[in-house]
Amino acid sequence: MAKYVYSFGEGKADGAGSMRELLGGKGANLAEMTSIGLPVPPGFTLTTEVCKAFYDNNRAYPDGLMEEVRQALETLEKRMAKGFGDRVNPLLVSVRSGAPASMPGMMDTVLNLGLNDQTIQGVIEQSHDQRFAYDSYRRFIQMYANVVKGMDGSILENILEEVKEHKGVEQDTDLSADDLKQLVSDFKASYRENLGEDFPEDPQEQLWGAIGAVFGSWMNPRAVTYRKLHAIPADWGTAVNVQGMVFGNMGDDCATGVAFTRDPATGENYFYGEYLVNAQGEDVVAGIRTPQPINRAKHKDGDLPSMEEVMPESYAQLVEIRAILEKHYRDMQDIEFTIEKNKLYMLQTRTGKRTAHAAIRIAVDMVKEGLISEKDAVLRVDPEQLDQLLHPSLDPKAEKQILARGLPASPGAASGQVVFNADEAEEQTRLKKKVILVRIETSPEDIHGMHAAQGILTARGGMTSHAAVVARGMGKCCVSGCGEIKIDYEKQQLTTKSGHIIKRGELLTLDGSTGEVILGEVPKIEPEVSGDFATLMSWVDQFKKLKVRTNADTPRDSKVARDFGAEGIGLCRTEHMFFEGDRIQAVREMILAENLEGRKRALDKILPMQKSDFVEIFREMKGLPVTIRLLDPPLHEFLPQTDDDVSELAHAVGLRFSEVKDHVAHLHEFNPMLGHRGCRLAITYPEVYDMQVQAIMEAACELIKNEGFEIVPEIMIPLISHVNELRILRANAVKVADRVCQEYGVKVDYLIGTMIELPRAALTADAIAQEAEFFSFGTNDLTQTTYGLSRDDAGHFLPDYIERGVLKKDPFVALDQRGVGQLVQMGFEKGRSTRPDLKVGICGEHGGEPSSVIFCHKIGLDYVSCSPYRVPIARLAAAHAALQDH
Amino acid sequence: MAKYVYSFGEGKADGAGSMRELLGGKGANLAEMTSIGLPVPPGFTLTTEVCKAFYDNNRAYPDGLMEEVRQALETLEKRMAKGFGDRVNPLLVSVRSGAPASMPGMMDTVLNLGLNDQTIQGVIEQSHDQRFAYDSYRRFIQMYANVVKGMDGSILENILEEVKEHKGVEQDTDLSADDLKQLVSDFKASYRENLGEDFPEDPQEQLWGAIGAVFGSWMNPRAVTYRKLHAIPADWGTAVNVQGMVFGNMGDDCATGVAFTRDPATGENYFYGEYLVNAQGEDVVAGIRTPQPINRAKHKDGDLPSMEEVMPESYAQLVEIRAILEKHYRDMQDIEFTIEKNKLYMLQTRTGKRTAHAAIRIAVDMVKEGLISEKDAVLRVDPEQLDQLLHPSLDPKAEKQILARGLPASPGAASGQVVFNADEAEEQTRLKKKVILVRIETSPEDIHGMHAAQGILTARGGMTSHAAVVARGMGKCCVSGCGEIKIDYEKQQLTTKSGHIIKRGELLTLDGSTGEVILGEVPKIEPEVSGDFATLMSWVDQFKKLKVRTNADTPRDSKVARDFGAEGIGLCRTEHMFFEGDRIQAVREMILAENLEGRKRALDKILPMQKSDFVEIFREMKGLPVTIRLLDPPLHEFLPQTDDDVSELAHAVGLRFSEVKDHVAHLHEFNPMLGHRGCRLAITYPEVYDMQVQAIMEAACELIKNEGFEIVPEIMIPLISHVNELRILRANAVKVADRVCQEYGVKVDYLIGTMIELPRAALTADAIAQEAEFFSFGTNDLTQTTYGLSRDDAGHFLPDYIERGVLKKDPFVALDQRGVGQLVQMGFEKGRSTRPDLKVGICGEHGGEPSSVIFCHKIGLDYVSCSPYRVPIARLAAAHAALQDH
Repeated sequence: MAKYVYSFGEGKADGAGSMRELLGGKGANLAEMTSIGLPVPPGFTLTTEVCKAFYDNNRAYPDGLMEEVRQALETLEKRMAKGFGDRVNPLLVSVRSGAPASMPGMMDTVLNLGLNDQTIQGVIEQSHDQRFAYDSYRRFIQMYANVVKGMDGSILENILEEVKEHKGVEQDTDLSADDLKQLVSDFKASYRENLGEDFPEDPQEQLWGAIGAVFGSWMNPRAVTYRKLHAIPADWGTAVNVQGMVFGNMGDDCATGVAFTRDPATGENYFYGEYLVNAQGEDVVAGIRTPQPINRAKHKDGDLPSMEEVMPESYAQLVEIRAILEKHYRDMQDIEFTIEKNKLYMLQTRTGKRTAHAAIRIAVDMVKEGLISEKDAVLRVDPEQLDQLLHPSLDPKAEKQILARGLPASPGAASGQVVFNADEAEEQTRLKKKVILVRIETSPEDIHGMHAAQGILTARGGMTSHAAVVARGMGKCCVSGCGEIKIDYEKQQLTTKSGHIIKRGELLTLDGSTGEVILGEVPKIEPEVSGDFATLMSWVDQFKKLKVRTNADTPRDSKVARDFGAEGIGLCRTEHMFFEGDRIQAVREMILAENLEGRKRALDKILPMQKSDFVEIFREMKGLPVTIRLLDPPLHEFLPQTDDDVSELAHAVGLRFSEVKDHVAHLHEFNPMLGHRGCRLAITYPEVYDMQVQAIMEAACELIKNEGFEIVPEIMIPLISHVNELRILRANAVKVADRVCQEYGVKVDYLIGTMIELPRAALTADAIAQEAEFFSFGTNDLTQTTYGLSRDDAGHFLPDYIERGVLKKDPFVALDQRGVGQLVQMGFEKGRSTRPDLKVGICGEHGGEPSSVIFCHKIGLDYVSCSPYRVPIARLAAAHAALQDH
Repeated sequence: MAKYVYSFGEGKADGAGSMRELLGGKGANLAEMTSIGLPVPPGFTLTTEVCKAFYDNNRAYPDGLMEEVRQALETLEKRMAKGFGDRVNPLLVSVRSGAPASMPGMMDTVLNLGLNDQTIQGVIEQSHDQRFAYDSYRRFIQMYANVVKGMDGSILENILEEVKEHKGVEQDTDLSADDLKQLVSDFKASYRENLGEDFPEDPQEQLWGAIGAVFGSWMNPRAVTYRKLHAIPADWGTAVNVQGMVFGNMGDDCATGVAFTRDPATGENYFYGEYLVNAQGEDVVAGIRTPQPINRAKHKDGDLPSMEEVMPESYAQLVEIRAILEKHYRDMQDIEFTIEKNKLYMLQTRTGKRTAHAAIRIAVDMVKEGLISEKDAVLRVDPEQLDQLLHPSLDPKAEKQILARGLPASPGAASGQVVFNADEAEEQTRLKKKVILVRIETSPEDIHGMHAAQGILTARGGMTSHAAVVARGMGKCCVSGCGEIKIDYEKQQLTTKSGHIIKRGELLTLDGSTGEVILGEVPKIEPEVSGDFATLMSWVDQFKKLKVRTNADTPRDSKVARDFGAEGIGLCRTEHMFFEGDRIQAVREMILAENLEGRKRALDKILPMQKSDFVEIFREMKGLPVTIRLLDPPLHEFLPQTDDDVSELAHAVGLRFSEVKDHVAHLHEFNPMLGHRGCRLAITYPEVYDMQVQAIMEAACELIKNEGFEIVPEIMIPLISHVNELRILRANAVKVADRVCQEYGVKVDYLIGTMIELPRAALTADAIAQEAEFFSFGTNDLTQTTYGLSRDDAGHFLPDYIERGVLKKDPFVALDQRGVGQLVQMGFEKGRSTRPDLKVGICGEHGGEPSSVIFCHKIGLDYVSCSPYRVPIARLAAAHAALQDH
């Protein structure tokens, strides 16, 4: 039979720190701390298995649990030398939840459990402190009513406030024992009135009530939502910790505090914490009294005396424990402690949450201190967390006119034209405009617009509002809850508090790290990899096996990525170049040309521009491989859609309005994602790819010939579904490439390969590899086709899917390993089966998402390619993957 | 070393009938006929390997070929007792191409090769017929110039005409020997003038010239196109047959003819053929003289005397040979023969092409005659050919006003509103209108409209025009080349010869079997399976293992399919029911409803209608399984698009125009194929599927309870990409179904399954099968997503892909076995791995295409499901598949 209850105390524990899944994080660490001799109040843990059984069995406890709890309680009574419900020397306990992963939203803590009208007398006798006893009692009733019974916390809080007002005092501590005794009585009356039952006097009933509340809270809507958002399986369950009470509020020789063994914001190696004399834990957190620092380090004027000064002995003991904990856990700890009558008790330790800055500094420092190895350091930093450090920020030297301030909901800085709805955000972005999406608040229907926009500004909603959560998920700058602005959708404008009006199309800048909304466009500075970050990344490169390239279409992006450690370009999209400046005009001429000759004439205009792009990119990436994807989008994306724009174009190219309009209509597609694009265009109009290949090869030849570069251009043909497409286009490309080489008299090694972005390409990769020297998995499109799910349209329902757990993760963010990943692996293996030296990477956005990078490492790809700002994330994830191999 | 040349003659042959790949059809049959003792002029065959080597080796012949030809020619000289180039007793030969498959467009025949100014003298001496000799000579020069040298045939033909005019005669046969001798001289002069070289006098040069022309013609544009259209691999190559000449034009005891051993149109068992006295083969085909029937059967008034009467002995011998051939080949033969001086020679035999009617009759008759087994009979009929018999035709009793007549380009009959462009055809069809697409001529850009239309009418283009070929490929009724009508795109109308004007939107009926264009809508009658067809189909069912179901949404379709032998419904689409009559109003109310309550109110209106549909369909399919697919298309398909229609709807549902307009805009999708549809709708709006499941189950319960039916409804949930979707929707469906059963107090066995139509579903079929009792592969959508190819948009380029051989076959017609088929097989095997009794079928349009049916049999599916009119095709293909297993 399973063991459901694990006891700890007096230096002995049934459990251990490694049993986090069974005992929850808190329970496991209480056991661990007990075992290594730290002063932990004894107690016991009901395992997560109980929780699972509870839900599997229609909310009934498993057989035998009652008896195990009875025995554990008996042991606890012995260890505490007190009796549960004993009116002379009563044992009071705390009941806390403790899941394997930290879980806000669940029932947290009930303290002082075991108090009733009988046992209070024992507490008074033992503590000689009637005030303390009644204060504990009224707190217990408050917590029990609120946390266990779900009674609105403000009801009892209001009674407390009334009493304070009545007595003319400001602090709870100013209430007398009699006041508190009266309060207990008032609380119980209110309890009865609101809950329709008496406050339970039976400690056993109290205990099981609290245990049941912890297990019940596992399925709280908030807890469920949190699990969804953090991909925590519902079947993990929570544990319940029952622990003997120690009191920080039994007088001035008592205290309670929380601390981090290092500074969690900066990572600096000093002991950072706060404490309160004569208080229970909740007081520190609740912010009713201002906590005091635990030591004089970083002491600021006005700070109250520190624990180091007030309780030097306990402080010294805590410092010692800090060292023991860091040595034991080899990581920064977040601890809770209580001092009862000058005796220090440890109530909790756990790995401390930290900013990305702190994570890096702590990891690097601990290597220097000999606490951990470089490998450990690399594994200590969460790749995804680096995102915090990798957004552009506003140039601090730039002038800025701040219009309003909202919440710093998602870091980074962004500028763009204001638009007021998601569709327009998307439309303008398609037209290569940069936009800021401004909404009163966002809903799942806005997702596509949020995706398209540079940044998001909302008037309503907090840090966990839809806009904030989604924007953070997207790594997109967001200022939320900016109540200072009034948004008028009808007039398409926003008005600031000062009466400044910003109309649709005007420029705004957002600072997602400060919450500032700024007029116009503010210069930005790029994030850098320097100092400890650079040190860590240098270790990363020792371990990782996967290469990390970048997706970059411009010399600027190429430089950014290179500075971030990119080892080449994995995807250079050429169509972006088609939109720039005057080029779009030539591109449109090409599309509207009546015949091959007309198209060639237009392509001749584009050729030198494309060539100069490639020259610059090759130069920026000197010595590194560059994969250039030939034209991919359907032609209609290059044509104007509104009548005004059509008219303008008709005028420019000397056609009638109706002719251009007809052409636009003719190119309309029902499902452009599945339409006449990619290699299909080149089968119809080979001259387009011919021009591009010529531009690539001329750029390479010139740099090789004139500047002695070594370049192996990788020419990538997109959207292959059948090997015959590649066979034809490869032959065309080879013809052009060889002709250019001959003209320049230069021998250039070049590779021709393909995107694997359609299921059929992966399924027939053995045939396709016979015509391809490299594969690059285009996992964005591969996800779209494998799921039959348009990214542009998924906003209508995908957020709801994630919210409700139909899908655990957005497959456009984290590679769906079981489905899409299966195709990637199949494509890779089939490709290598017919061409053993096939170069293989991925270039979808998954290339910068840690779990996807780890997958790519596992199946054996050569590289991943991701956006410049995610290169360090991918590098770190690649190192994690390599280190986890062993 | 390979043997390149195969001789035959004097009852002996190096080759045999089974060597069709190596010797071509003609060569193999010449060898076979020689071996079985039939009178065949001796000769030899250059193999298809020579052709392959010729092209592999930059149009040079393989080593050793010259020597083998020399030896074969020597043998031929011996067998004919004549010398090639010998001026006393010269050997003349024919040179003919002969590919493994019949191949129009290639060089066909050169006769009388070996003639020159020297050998003509020998011919004169041997034949004692100067006129014959010069006639043969001038024919040879004509053929050589045209066929071998590519000189325009009309040039020499005109000279011949001038001479006839000059001489005042009408028939070639009226020219004298001297006239012909002069003609030879004139022809040679023209030859020199036009080709810049002398006519070759050297017989060896003539021979190699002709051989080279045959091999060269393999890559003729026409031959290349034909191969593309008929999926004949270019690397098969052609053989060349060199055969001693025999002469049907050496006097009135000579003749030449062609015959079928049975009537190729009806299949009737009588000897059907035509012949000409004193003529060469080309004369029969050319139609210059009217050929005579070979026998008195089916003799009509005005027919010339038959061969049976004129040459009774040769005829008797031919009848004997007919019997030998049918017994030997056990199939109807298409033969060519020549009689030289009362001696009969067989020049060719091959399996005769026949109509579907004839194919069936011959197969059934031959079983009765004991020539072949039932199994053979089944294998003799091409499943695809049955399509000819399975189209509706106009009711012969119906009155009809014929407006015009064109070519009967693709059989069947169709009625609909006239539209003049492909986009509109598609648009109207989306709106559930039936249309006839009328075009001056069609191009690949019209394909999507042709697909959508009921039938196609063109003013220009013959039986092999784009419209005709594509329509036949689609099995769609087409009248082409209807020059009597004038089409005015500007005015959107057509005008008949008699001045009748038909405007856009008016009703027309086409009869694709007669070429008639008829005013209004004419009643149609359904094809039937009766007589020999029914006999054959009864044998089919003995052999096939795969079940054949049908895709049917109406009681009428269900009945048609059942009459054609369908064994159940594999796909009943419920959305079609949503469009009928008043229902669309309720559906639109549902879509526009603001909340669940409003949607449920609208669904309550639809419920009884859906239920009555199901009752009728269950009744029609009594005792057979019925798979019902729940709602699949995106909601916007049900909403109006034009402002007028939006306005009407707004009025009807009591909303403002702008509200409805906004709703329509909100539901717009960029890629509806990959959008919010199928099960995704039901995750968002579970009440829709709940209503449908309720309707299905109530229908079943009523029939079971009141009429004692046995029904096992199969409820199919579409567009599953992740098992969680199915898990949720299955649980919902079970809840509703069980509730209905309880209400009716009836126990109904029902199955819940899913379409596998997205790659991810196939890839994760092991998981999905745990929630599905059956799979039905939706190969239409699976093809779209696997290829990343929208069927709606493929018209822009897919025809060109097929034309140019990038893809061998349209993957929407014949299942792409390597790619999509791989997913089908994977899905099937994975599904069965976790649920061994999983029922599996396919319900895409591939279910009625023979090669796809055979594939489904091979991988082990339980059934295919196809449109009602293709059920017999699928049954026959299934039998072929089973018989080919052994």
